[in-house]
Amino acid sequence: MKALHLSGTSFELKYDHPMPEPLPGEVLVRVIRAGICETDLQLIQGYMGFEGILGHEFVGIAESGKMAGQRVVGEINCSCRVCEVCRSGLPTHCPKRTVLGIVGHDGAFAEYIAVPETNLHVVPDILSTDEAVFVEPVAAAYQILKQRLVERGQSVVVLGDGRLGNLCAQVLANYGCTVMVVGKHEAKLRILNNLAAGIKTVFLNEASLNRSADVVVDCTGSSTGLTTALQFVKPWGTVVMKTTVAGEQTLALAPIVIDEVRVVGSRCGPFGDALVGLQSGRIKVKQLISERFALDQAVEALEVTSNQPVLKVLLDVSNE
Amino acid sequence: MKALHLSGTSFELKYDHPMPEPLPGEVLVRVIRAGICETDLQLIQGYMGFEGILGHEFVGIAESGKMAGQRVVGEINCSCRVCEVCRSGLPTHCPKRTVLGIVGHDGAFAEYIAVPETNLHVVPDILSTDEAVFVEPVAAAYQILKQRLVERGQSVVVLGDGRLGNLCAQVLANYGCTVMVVGKHEAKLRILNNLAAGIKTVFLNEASLNRSADVVVDCTGSSTGLTTALQFVKPWGTVVMKTTVAGEQTLALAPIVIDEVRVVGSRCGPFGDALVGLQSGRIKVKQLISERFALDQAVEALEVTSNQPVLKVLLDVSNE
Repeated sequence: MKALHLSGTSFELKYDHPMPEPLPGEVLVRVIRAGICETDLQLIQGYMGFEGILGHEFVGIAESGKMAGQRVVGEINCSCRVCEVCRSGLPTHCPKRTVLGIVGHDGAFAEYIAVPETNLHVVPDILSTDEAVFVEPVAAAYQILKQRLVERGQSVVVLGDGRLGNLCAQVLANYGCTVMVVGKHEAKLRILNNLAAGIKTVFLNEASLNRSADVVVDCTGSSTGLTTALQFVKPWGTVVMKTTVAGEQTLALAPIVIDEVRVVGSRCGPFGDALVGLQSGRIKVKQLISERFALDQAVEALEVTSNQPVLKVLLDVSNE
Repeated sequence: MKALHLSGTSFELKYDHPMPEPLPGEVLVRVIRAGICETDLQLIQGYMGFEGILGHEFVGIAESGKMAGQRVVGEINCSCRVCEVCRSGLPTHCPKRTVLGIVGHDGAFAEYIAVPETNLHVVPDILSTDEAVFVEPVAAAYQILKQRLVERGQSVVVLGDGRLGNLCAQVLANYGCTVMVVGKHEAKLRILNNLAAGIKTVFLNEASLNRSADVVVDCTGSSTGLTTALQFVKPWGTVVMKTTVAGEQTLALAPIVIDEVRVVGSRCGPFGDALVGLQSGRIKVKQLISERFALDQAVEALEVTSNQPVLKVLLDVSNE
């Protein structure tokens, strides 16, 4: 089959990659569409040292199991479900986990992917495939609520006007927070204004760094994001770290101690909440689709996502 | 008067330093005894760019005001008490604050210090001056409870067997946590064992880094403390950052996001709780006194604290 394969920091489209061989409990999914994520851009720079097929945002058709023939999306953490961490309610932190397209498990930039059946969710007919491909990143935004890091009525600054910043801003504004997105791109900020969700926007170089936000969500994907966040958050406030950056970062940690700030990492989230948010129409995603490529052009798609100020780039893998 | 003065990174004992001139609301305190803290060691390396008289752990005799003639200890943050931050209940975060011996206010390594009267607490007769000089660092340990960062019954790893690590371990063990102190110094770990407070100890190079602690308290005073803490804490666990380090640190931030860890800074704490803990005898401090010097030998005292594996070094400033 065709698959976009990463090894070290070099990636290429293979035309004769072996078909996935589902493990016990896994089903084969024929991929229809996939999305390129900031994490993919980190992986091709060596983050996690991943080798295999990239891709973890996808919609496909289950080929077997109880959802056979239906459109599905899949949670990306493949957990053992029996260890102490899994049984404590945190299967996404299973120490033995693999992660689709990120850790020890081939991903979705391919014609087929093997996914644990327990990870799959049927996509309701009301959602288009273009919308459903956003379930994974929308779930990541809802994770901030699942972790109880914000309260209704709080002031939230979202750093970054990209894909994840946009979705976090929508989820938090819908929850009842006062949301300000700080960005660098006029076109991306305008998209947020046009949502009519009450989200305010400001250019980074025009924002006042007055340490007054209850919560700051770092969606910059930048190694300087945390330092900037610490200039916006108030004492005893919360910084949500949404983006993972490869390698080491250099910053002054003292402001965390001096202002007694709470810095919390936030990763994969609840697919159920994301499906509800998308179906309700409250979380809008179509405005985020910048470009689409066929799987044959996957290398070009990754390069465009890396080098141009796009929002979401989709891969059309096969017909529905 | 005699005073230990810092300018840049050079410090010297001055014999003819002007007496403090109390501001409105401040009273003059004749210093009896003072303690040298890790923050002092950071300050002489340029942290905060402080210029003035060092010292923020002290016991003295109030020379005026309603506590005149009594032994007192003093909270170190001098706040405006009227701004929004102060009125929100966080006067230690007042943006206009000065901090005794740290920010814009002369400290206690001197014969006299001016302190806002509202910062002073009378020392009960039951406490010796040697014990009372520990009120400020014991309060810093109690701040972890005030911030509600731990629950009874949780497993806590304290990184660092020094002054603050010892006090945090005692406060958390007394609160009902299962406490393990990870250190590098046999003598300091033995002091913890001898407290009979149920505190376990282990050498850093013999500790198992199995990401299983509910809470890790970084009292290392080292730029690598946070990285080590992230190897001990479990997913969704808490790292309490107790030490401030000058300058910038280099570390991988991704583990915070991957494990969805909560990293919280923790600084000055409640003097009332510290006085109660010390009076009850539950928090023991005399075993921490390594050496004592006269104020005349303050430069030597700082050098010993910087360069030798001592616990608390006291300055005897004047008679009670």
